[in-house]
Amino acid sequence: QPHPYPPSASYHPSTSSVFTPLDTFLPRHLGPRDADVKDMLSALGYKDMDSFINECIPKDVRVSPLSDNDADGIRPMSELELRRRAEEVAGMNKGMKSYIGMGYHNAIVPPVIQRNVLENPAWYTAYTPYSPEQAQGRLESLINFQTVIISLTSLPIANASLLDEGTAAAEGMAMCLANVPKAKFTKGKKVFLVSPTVAPQTIEVLKTRASGFGIELRVAKSNESLEEEVEELGEAGLMGAMVQYPDVNGEVGQWEGVTKKVKGTGAKMVVASDLLALTMLKPPGEWGADIVCGNSQRFGVPVGYGGPHAAFFSCTDELKRKMPGRLVGLSKGARGEPAYRLALQTREQHIRREKATSNVCTAQALLANMAAMYAVYHGPAGLRRIAGKVHALTRILASSLESLGFEIVNKTYFDTLTVNVKAAGLGAAHVHAASVQAGINFRRIDENSIGITLDESVGPLDLTDIVNVFYQLKGKAAIEPDVLDRLATEMDLSASSVDGVSSLGRSTPFLQQSVFNKHHSETDMLRYMMHLQEKDYSLVHGMIPLGSCTMKLNSTSAMVPLSWKEFGGIHPFAPVDQAKGYEVLINELERDLSLVTGYDATSVQPNSGASGEYAGLKVIQAFHESKGQGHRNVCLIPLSAHGTNPASAAMVGYKVVPIKALADGSLDLEDLREKATKHKDDLASFMVTYPSTFGVFEEGIEEACQIVHDNGGQVYVDGANCNSLVGLTSLGRVGGDVSHTNLHKTFSIPHGGGGPGIGPISCKSHLAPFLPTHSIIPTGGSTPIPAVSAAPWGSASINTISWAYIKMLGGSGLTDVSRIALLSANYIAHRLAPYYNIRFTNRNGRVAHECLIDLGEFEKSAGLKVTDFSKRLQDYSFHPPTAQWPISTCWLIEPTESEPKHELDRFIDALIAMRKEVDLIVDGKADKENNVFKHAPHPLAVLLDDKWDRPYSKQTAVYPVAGLRKSKFWPSVSRLDDAAGDLNLICECGSTEDYA
Amino acid sequence: QPHPYPPSASYHPSTSSVFTPLDTFLPRHLGPRDADVKDMLSALGYKDMDSFINECIPKDVRVSPLSDNDADGIRPMSELELRRRAEEVAGMNKGMKSYIGMGYHNAIVPPVIQRNVLENPAWYTAYTPYSPEQAQGRLESLINFQTVIISLTSLPIANASLLDEGTAAAEGMAMCLANVPKAKFTKGKKVFLVSPTVAPQTIEVLKTRASGFGIELRVAKSNESLEEEVEELGEAGLMGAMVQYPDVNGEVGQWEGVTKKVKGTGAKMVVASDLLALTMLKPPGEWGADIVCGNSQRFGVPVGYGGPHAAFFSCTDELKRKMPGRLVGLSKGARGEPAYRLALQTREQHIRREKATSNVCTAQALLANMAAMYAVYHGPAGLRRIAGKVHALTRILASSLESLGFEIVNKTYFDTLTVNVKAAGLGAAHVHAASVQAGINFRRIDENSIGITLDESVGPLDLTDIVNVFYQLKGKAAIEPDVLDRLATEMDLSASSVDGVSSLGRSTPFLQQSVFNKHHSETDMLRYMMHLQEKDYSLVHGMIPLGSCTMKLNSTSAMVPLSWKEFGGIHPFAPVDQAKGYEVLINELERDLSLVTGYDATSVQPNSGASGEYAGLKVIQAFHESKGQGHRNVCLIPLSAHGTNPASAAMVGYKVVPIKALADGSLDLEDLREKATKHKDDLASFMVTYPSTFGVFEEGIEEACQIVHDNGGQVYVDGANCNSLVGLTSLGRVGGDVSHTNLHKTFSIPHGGGGPGIGPISCKSHLAPFLPTHSIIPTGGSTPIPAVSAAPWGSASINTISWAYIKMLGGSGLTDVSRIALLSANYIAHRLAPYYNIRFTNRNGRVAHECLIDLGEFEKSAGLKVTDFSKRLQDYSFHPPTAQWPISTCWLIEPTESEPKHELDRFIDALIAMRKEVDLIVDGKADKENNVFKHAPHPLAVLLDDKWDRPYSKQTAVYPVAGLRKSKFWPSVSRLDDAAGDLNLICECGSTEDYA
Ligand SMILES: Cc1ncc(COP(=O)(O)O)c(C=O)c1O
Ligand SMILES: Cc1ncc(COP(=O)(O)O)c(C=O)c1O
Ligand SMILES: O=C([O-])O
Repeated sequence: QPHPYPPSASYHPSTSSVFTPLDTFLPRHLGPRDADVKDMLSALGYKDMDSFINECIPKDVRVSPLSDNDADGIRPMSELELRRRAEEVAGMNKGMKSYIGMGYHNAIVPPVIQRNVLENPAWYTAYTPYSPEQAQGRLESLINFQTVIISLTSLPIANASLLDEGTAAAEGMAMCLANVPKAKFTKGKKVFLVSPTVAPQTIEVLKTRASGFGIELRVAKSNESLEEEVEELGEAGLMGAMVQYPDVNGEVGQWEGVTKKVKGTGAKMVVASDLLALTMLKPPGEWGADIVCGNSQRFGVPVGYGGPHAAFFSCTDELKRKMPGRLVGLSKGARGEPAYRLALQTREQHIRREKATSNVCTAQALLANMAAMYAVYHGPAGLRRIAGKVHALTRILASSLESLGFEIVNKTYFDTLTVNVKAAGLGAAHVHAASVQAGINFRRIDENSIGITLDESVGPLDLTDIVNVFYQLKGKAAIEPDVLDRLATEMDLSASSVDGVSSLGRSTPFLQQSVFNKHHSETDMLRYMMHLQEKDYSLVHGMIPLGSCTMKLNSTSAMVPLSWKEFGGIHPFAPVDQAKGYEVLINELERDLSLVTGYDATSVQPNSGASGEYAGLKVIQAFHESKGQGHRNVCLIPLSAHGTNPASAAMVGYKVVPIKALADGSLDLEDLREKATKHKDDLASFMVTYPSTFGVFEEGIEEACQIVHDNGGQVYVDGANCNSLVGLTSLGRVGGDVSHTNLHKTFSIPHGGGGPGIGPISCKSHLAPFLPTHSIIPTGGSTPIPAVSAAPWGSASINTISWAYIKMLGGSGLTDVSRIALLSANYIAHRLAPYYNIRFTNRNGRVAHECLIDLGEFEKSAGLKVTDFSKRLQDYSFHPPTAQWPISTCWLIEPTESEPKHELDRFIDALIAMRKEVDLIVDGKADKENNVFKHAPHPLAVLLDDKWDRPYSKQTAVYPVAGLRKSKFWPSVSRLDDAAGDLNLICECGSTEDYA
Repeated sequence: QPHPYPPSASYHPSTSSVFTPLDTFLPRHLGPRDADVKDMLSALGYKDMDSFINECIPKDVRVSPLSDNDADGIRPMSELELRRRAEEVAGMNKGMKSYIGMGYHNAIVPPVIQRNVLENPAWYTAYTPYSPEQAQGRLESLINFQTVIISLTSLPIANASLLDEGTAAAEGMAMCLANVPKAKFTKGKKVFLVSPTVAPQTIEVLKTRASGFGIELRVAKSNESLEEEVEELGEAGLMGAMVQYPDVNGEVGQWEGVTKKVKGTGAKMVVASDLLALTMLKPPGEWGADIVCGNSQRFGVPVGYGGPHAAFFSCTDELKRKMPGRLVGLSKGARGEPAYRLALQTREQHIRREKATSNVCTAQALLANMAAMYAVYHGPAGLRRIAGKVHALTRILASSLESLGFEIVNKTYFDTLTVNVKAAGLGAAHVHAASVQAGINFRRIDENSIGITLDESVGPLDLTDIVNVFYQLKGKAAIEPDVLDRLATEMDLSASSVDGVSSLGRSTPFLQQSVFNKHHSETDMLRYMMHLQEKDYSLVHGMIPLGSCTMKLNSTSAMVPLSWKEFGGIHPFAPVDQAKGYEVLINELERDLSLVTGYDATSVQPNSGASGEYAGLKVIQAFHESKGQGHRNVCLIPLSAHGTNPASAAMVGYKVVPIKALADGSLDLEDLREKATKHKDDLASFMVTYPSTFGVFEEGIEEACQIVHDNGGQVYVDGANCNSLVGLTSLGRVGGDVSHTNLHKTFSIPHGGGGPGIGPISCKSHLAPFLPTHSIIPTGGSTPIPAVSAAPWGSASINTISWAYIKMLGGSGLTDVSRIALLSANYIAHRLAPYYNIRFTNRNGRVAHECLIDLGEFEKSAGLKVTDFSKRLQDYSFHPPTAQWPISTCWLIEPTESEPKHELDRFIDALIAMRKEVDLIVDGKADKENNVFKHAPHPLAVLLDDKWDRPYSKQTAVYPVAGLRKSKFWPSVSRLDDAAGDLNLICECGSTEDYA
C-alpha cells in the first residue's frame, strides 16, 4: 500500500551526516538516558539490549525490524520537520464555512479554555479519575458537565459523556431493551421505532447496533404516522422509540403525544436533542422523555472533522442503575468532607462481561470538561443570549429566502432551515455549486432541497454571504449587511421564544447553581480552572503506572497541530475534496498502523478501544456471512480478558465461552482446543490479548491461533498491550486476523482524564472488504459493515497526534520505544522481586511491558487489601497502578518508556518502603486497623488535627520518605467512602458550592 | 493622524443590533459584574458612576469621552474579530528566511518550553520575585539563567537579564565609569574606546548613552590600531574599551593583547559575545574581560522583529556591587532552609535616584527563563552539538563560496561569513536582489560585501538554497543537497574546534551542574517546569495588589498572536517591505496610544518604562538644543517620584532638584514655583507622575505645568499610573509635553515575572521631530535622537498584546476600565478606612486607582514593620502590595479593574482580620516578638513541627480565615534572611541540587 501522496520534498541525510537534524524526537520521548539503559540492563544481568529482548519475546514470533525508509517503513522526522509537514498537510484542507448542521456546528472556543484546558498538559495528561482523592478537580468539572445535561434536559441523572451522538442513541436503545420486561416481546420481536427525521448517521449506527441485540430497527414511514405505528405495534413488540428535537431538518416537533403512546405500551422514549436549543425549548424531561442524548460539541469544542466531542446522556431515576458510561457522584471522605468520585461502580472493572449491554470505557472526558467550562463561562444568561441570537439570525434568513420565493419546508425551527429550492425554480445542485463557489457548504438533502444550520460563529458578513448565494442565483445584485440589519429591526426580533412554537418555549430556569453564575470574567474563569487543576494528579507530577493504560509522554510537538483551525474547523460531512489534508493524514496513519501491526488494512472509525472490539467482531461476523457461515456465533475468550471483550462479543450477539488459564498464567491450550473443537460448527471467533493481560508473552499464541483457524474461527487480538511489541513482533505475525489498537495508549494520544481515544481496527486482507463505511461519506471496504461511529473517521482531529508520534519516531524509534518499555517493566519487576510476589513471568523470568504483583498474601498476614496499598501509595506522591484487575488481589504496573530512571527508582523505593510498613503490621509493631494504610491517603488537612492519637507520627503519615519534603502532590481529600455516595446518589452540583 | 491602512473590511452593527457580537471583551476583562458595580457604588454612597467619577478626577482636566468610531476613536472588536484581524495583519508579514545575524538568529523554541512557559499564564502573569517565599520557582530558574551566563562567559557574577544587547553594552560602559578612579581623568576627558567591529546598533546605543555621562565615545580606526589608540590615550582618559567576540563580521578576534593594555591603563574591558559561540570558544573571562554582555535570544527565544529577548551581563567579583539590574542570590529561610531571593537590594526601591548610573527595573525575566530552560533541556553536550553543527555548516558554506570565486573576508569564524562578492565579479545589490528572490535575506554591509550568519534552524535544504543563490548568480545550475553532504564528508567535519582559531578553542567544561544534566527527556523537562511553577504565586491564584504595577488580566486573546511565526520569525533588520504587518500594527498602536494619552505622536522603541523616561528626557534635551537652549540642565522632580525618574535625569546629564510635597500629599506648588523661577535660565524639565505616586489626582497639576512652561521647561509626565485615567483625562490634557506609558501595566502586557515590558513615549507635536530613530532601519522623527534601544521598534513582537487589548476594548471600553479601576481602589479604601490609616485622599475623600495605607502607627503600638504585614499577608494567600514605597511606612494597594468583587472582599477581609491580630499585640494578648507576624509567612513545613511552642495555634498560623481551607497558595519557604545571603553572595546554582 504505497503512500497516496508523496511526503514533503526534503533531503534525508544519513545519520552520520552533519546535516542530521538535532531536534530528533526519540531521545526526548524516552525517559531513561543511554547510561541509564546500560545500568538497567546490567542490573538485570544482560550485556546488551538484544540478549534482553530475546529473553522477553519468543524468538519464533519476532519480525524483522521496522525500517526507517519511506518505501517499506517509516522515516523519522525531527520535531521541526514534523511541524513543517503538518503545516503542509493542514494547508491541503480548505477553509470553507459549513452550515451543514446534523449535530455538528461551528463553535467559538473561548480562548481561555482552549489554552488552559485543551492545551494544558495538567488537564490532558490526566487519567480517568479512578483515584478520586487525587482527582477532585476534574471530578468537579465532570459533575458540572452532568449538571448542564440534567438542567437542560430536565432529567434527574446524566453521565459524564459518551463517545458520540450516534453511539449514545444506540446506548439508549440498548438501555430500553434492558429496562423493558421480557414478557413484553410476545410476538418474538423487539422493535425499536425511529422517527425518520432523526439524523441519518444516528439511524445508521442504531441499525448497526440493533442486529446484535436481536432488535428490529424500524424507521417510521413518517412523523405523522408515528403514533399510528406505535399503536399497531402495541404492547406486543415495541421496546422503545426515538425522536429528535429539533429534528435533523430543523423542525421543532410536538412529541408529547407520541411519547405518551410509547410509554403507554410499556416502552421507553429516547430523544436526541441539542443543548443550545434547549436553552429556549421546553426540555424533553418535561414532556415525558425517558432518555435524552446528543452531542455537546457546540458548547465550545472544535468540530474537528467529526470528533472528538462529548456525547451526553440523561435518563429518569428509574433507569439510572443501568446507565452506560461513567457517572460522577458526590460522596464524602473519611474525615466527613464532601468529595466526588465515580459512582455506582461505573468502572471498566465492573463491566458486566457477557451480561453487558454496553462496553463503553474510554469516553470523552476532556471534551466534556471543555463543554462544562463553556457553560461555566457563559452562564445561563450568556447561553440564552447566544441561542437567542442564533435563532434571530435564522428568522432573518428564513424571511430573506422566502422573499426570494424559496420555501422553508419546516414550519418551526430553532437554528435550521430546510429550504425547498425548487419552489424558486432551482435545483439543489445549482445551489450547492454556487455556495461552494462562495466558500460555503450547505447540507445536501436531495435534488430539491438543501439544509442550512446557523451557529454562534455567524456574523453579519457570514449571513450576508449566505443570503447572497441566493440573491445571485436569482440574478439579483448582492446585498450589504445593513439590508439584513434593517430587516432585523423591522421584524422586531426581541421575541425570546422559538418562532411558531411558543407552546414549546422553555419556562423553567436552568443552571441556577452558583458555579454557573460566578466565573464570568476571564480572571475568575482562569482561577477556577487552575483551582481545579491543582487538585489533580497528572503526568506533569510523576509516573502514572497504570497497567494496560500506557501512560506515556504526550509530546507537545504531537499535540500542537490539533489546535490549528485547518484541522479544527472542518465539518465531517463537508465534501471530501475540501478535506484533502485529512485524507492524506488518515491514509498515512492507516498505512503506518497496518505496517506496525502486521496487517493489511486499517480503519480509524472506532472512537475507543471497546468500539474497536465491537467493530472488529462485526467485521468477523460479516466475513462469516459472506462465506455462508452467518450462523457462527461462539466466541472463545480467556477468563483473564478485559471486561470489554465479552461485552463486545455479547453486543454483536455472540455466545461467550470462557477459556481457562494455567497456573503459570498462560492460556490453557488444552481447554482452548477442547472448546474450539466442541464448537467448531458454530465457532465465530477467539478474542485474546497479546501479550496477555497478565503481562506475559504467551508462548502458545501461534498454536492457539492455529487451533481457532482449524476450527473455522477468526482470531481477534486485543491490541491494548501493543506498547510491548511494536517493531519486535506484530499482532498479525502472531496469528491475528483483526485487532484494535488504542491510539490513546501505544500511540500517544493523551488520556484526557478519561478520553478521548481512538480504537482503530487493522486486519488481514481477507477481512479488509468488510471495514466499516458511513452512509453520508462512504469509506471502508468494498462490502463494508455499516458505520459504528457517528462520523466517517470517528474522532478525526486527534489522529493528528498519533500520526505525528509515529512520524517523529520512525520505524527504528518505534522499536526502541518497545525495547525501553520492556526494559523499564522488567527493571521494576527485578528490583521488586525480593519484596513482592511477581505473579507471572515467562520461562526466562521476564515480564512484558507491565508486571502483575500479587498483594494477596498481605490480606492474611496484615489485613491489608489492594485498595489499602493504592491509597497509601498516594501518600508517596504517586498515582496507584491498575488495581484488582485482571486478578483481584493484584496490582498491574506499567511504567512505559517515557519514565526517567530516577522516577522508576523513586517508585520502586516507595514500594520497598511500603513493604517495610507492612512488616511492622505483620510483626505486630503496628496496629492492624489503626495504621498508615487504613487511614491513607493523608491529605494536608490531617496536619492541622490538634488531637493526633494515631500510633504513627504525622511525618510518617505524609512524608514516609525524605524526598517528599522537596516535592509532593497532596491528595485533596481523605479516603472516599463509596458506599455512602451510592446509597444517596447525587450527581449534579449543589447550588451553594463555592471555591474560595 | 489617520490609519495608514484601512482596518479589515467588516460590518459594524450598532450595539442594539441583533448582529452585535456576543464575544465582546469588556465584560470578560472586568472583574466586577454589573450588579457588583452597583453595590460598590452604593457602598461608597453614589447613585451612579458619573457622580463617583466626578468626585475622583478634577472636572477641569476631564476630556470628552473616547469614541468608538474608527475615525476619531477606537472601534471595539469582539475577541473573534480581533483574532481575524490579527491573522490578516500577520499575513502581511513575509515569511522570508533571514541570515542577517548581528545578534539576532532564527531559533528553534522547544515546543515543551513554548507551551508551558511562554504560553502559560502561571509563568507569564507572575510579578518580579519581590515576595521570594512565593516565588522560589522563577527565582530558581533565574539562577539557572545566571549560571548559564557565568559558566559560558567564565566570570563569577551575572545578573538576571537586561533589556537588550545595546543597552547592556551601555550599562557596561556606565559601570566602567563608576569603577574607574576619578583621578584617572586628568585631561578632563573620559574616553570609552570601541572596536569598529562591534555591532553598529550597539555602537549607536553607546553613543546615545555616552553623552549624558560626559563620556567621549571613540570608535577606533580599526581593530589593528586598537592597541595603539589605547596606548595613545594611556592613563589619562581611557575609562573603558569594548570589543565583540566573535565580531559583527564573524571574525573571532584575539583580544587578549588589547585587553591587557586596556587594563594596564586602569580601565575596564567590556566584551560583547555570543552564548552559542562560547560553547566552542575560549571564554572572555579566561582572557581578561571585566564585563561580558550580549543577547541570549538564540537560546530558544523567537527573534520577533527585535525583541523581547534577555540580554545577559556578567562581571568580575570586583565590580559586582555596582552591577545594574536584578541579581538572584541564594540565602536561607528562617527555618534554615536554602532559599533564593533578589540579592544586594537590586530592587526598584533601591535605585539610587540621582546618584544612579542605571535606571533599569523591568528587564526580561520571562525570556531569561526561556533561555535558561533551553539550556536545561539541551544540557552542555546538546548545546555543544548545536554549536558544532552550526559551525560545520558555516565551513561548508565558506568552502562552497570560495570554490565559486567569492572571497571570505574574515579569516576566522564561528557562524558568520563576510563575503566579498566583488571578488567574484558581482555587486552586493545583485546578490541581495537574487537572495530576496529566493526568499532569503543576507546582511547588507556595503556595495561589495554581504554577511551570512547561520543558526540551528539551518537544514540541508536551507543551506542548499543559500548556496544556489550564488550558483545562479555565477550562471551555474542549481545543486542538490547531496552535493553539500558529500563535500561535508570530504572536508571531514569532525574537528570540534573553531576553524583557524584552535588557540581560541574552549577547553574548560561548562554547565556541569546537575540541573543542566538531568532534564533532557520531555517528560522530565515538563515536570521540572511544573515543579517550579507550583512554587510561584501569580495571577492564576489571586489578586496581586501591587500599587503602581497594575497587575490586571492578561487575556488569552491578546496573548495568542504572539505565538504565531508570522510575528515571531522576522529579523529586526529585514527589509521593511517584508514587515508590512508589523508596520500596520505598530502604526495603529502608536496612533491609538497618541489618542488615549492626548498627544500627537508616539514611539514604541523604548523597551521599559525607565527606558521611556530616558528617551523622553533625551527628546526634551534635543528640543532645547534645537532652540539654542542646549545648556538647560535642571530637572525638577518631586520627592515622591519613582526612583527611576531622578536616575533617568542623571543619565541624560541633568541636575536633579527635588520638589517637596505638602502634608496632604499634594505637590508643594510654592516650592515648585520657587525652584522653577530660581532655575529659570537652566530649567530643562519637570518630571511628575499623574495621578501621583501617592495615589491621588493632584488638583494643581495644570498650574504646575504652567509654572514650568513659564520658566522655559518641558513637562515629563510619568504615565505609570495611566490605568486611572484613560478616557477620563489624559497626560497631554493635564499639561504634559512628553510621557511614557508602561504597556506592561495599563495596556495589559503581562509582567512575565519581571519583564518583558514596553515603555513607549508619546509627545506633543513640537517634540515629535525628535522621537528616536535607528541607524539601520530609520524610524522616528524628522530630526531624531539616535536609538535608545538595540532594535528599531524595541520589543516589537509584544506590541501585539497591547494592540489587541486596545482594539478589543475600544474607546468606551478603555474608559470603563479606568472607571472600574477607580471604583475598585475606592471601594477598598472605603472598607478599610475604619481599620487603617488611608494616607492621602483628595478633598472629596477619594483616592485614584490605588491607595496608600500607612502602617507606621503599628510600629510604635505593636512593634510591627511593613515587612511583617507583607509576610503575614502571604499566610492569607495573597501577594503583598507594593511596600515601603513611595513612603517607607506604607503599603500601596492597586486592585485594578480585573479583580472580581469577591476577590476584593477576600482581600479586605484579610486585612481586617490582620488588624484584629494587631490588636491582640497592642492589647498585650499576644507577644510582641513571638507572634503570627514575626514568624510569617508560615510554609507548610511548620505543620510538621513536633514541638510547637508558639503562643498561637497552627490553625491560626496557616488558616487565619476559614475560606483558606478550601483553597490556599502556600509559601514554599519561611521568611527569607536577606542579610545572610548578601554576606555570602551565591548567585549560581550548586552542583548537587535536586528536585525530587
Ligand atoms: C486489554 C484492554 N482491552 C480493551 C480496552 C478498552 O479500551 P477503551 O478504554 O479505549 O475502550 C482496554 C482499556 O483499558 C484494555 O486494557
Ligand atoms: C511611577 C513609575 N515610573 C517608572 C517606572 C519604571 O518602569 P519600568 O519598570 O517599566 O522600567 C515604574 C515601575 O514600576 C513606576 O511605577
Ligand atoms: O515595582 C514597582 O513598580 O515599583
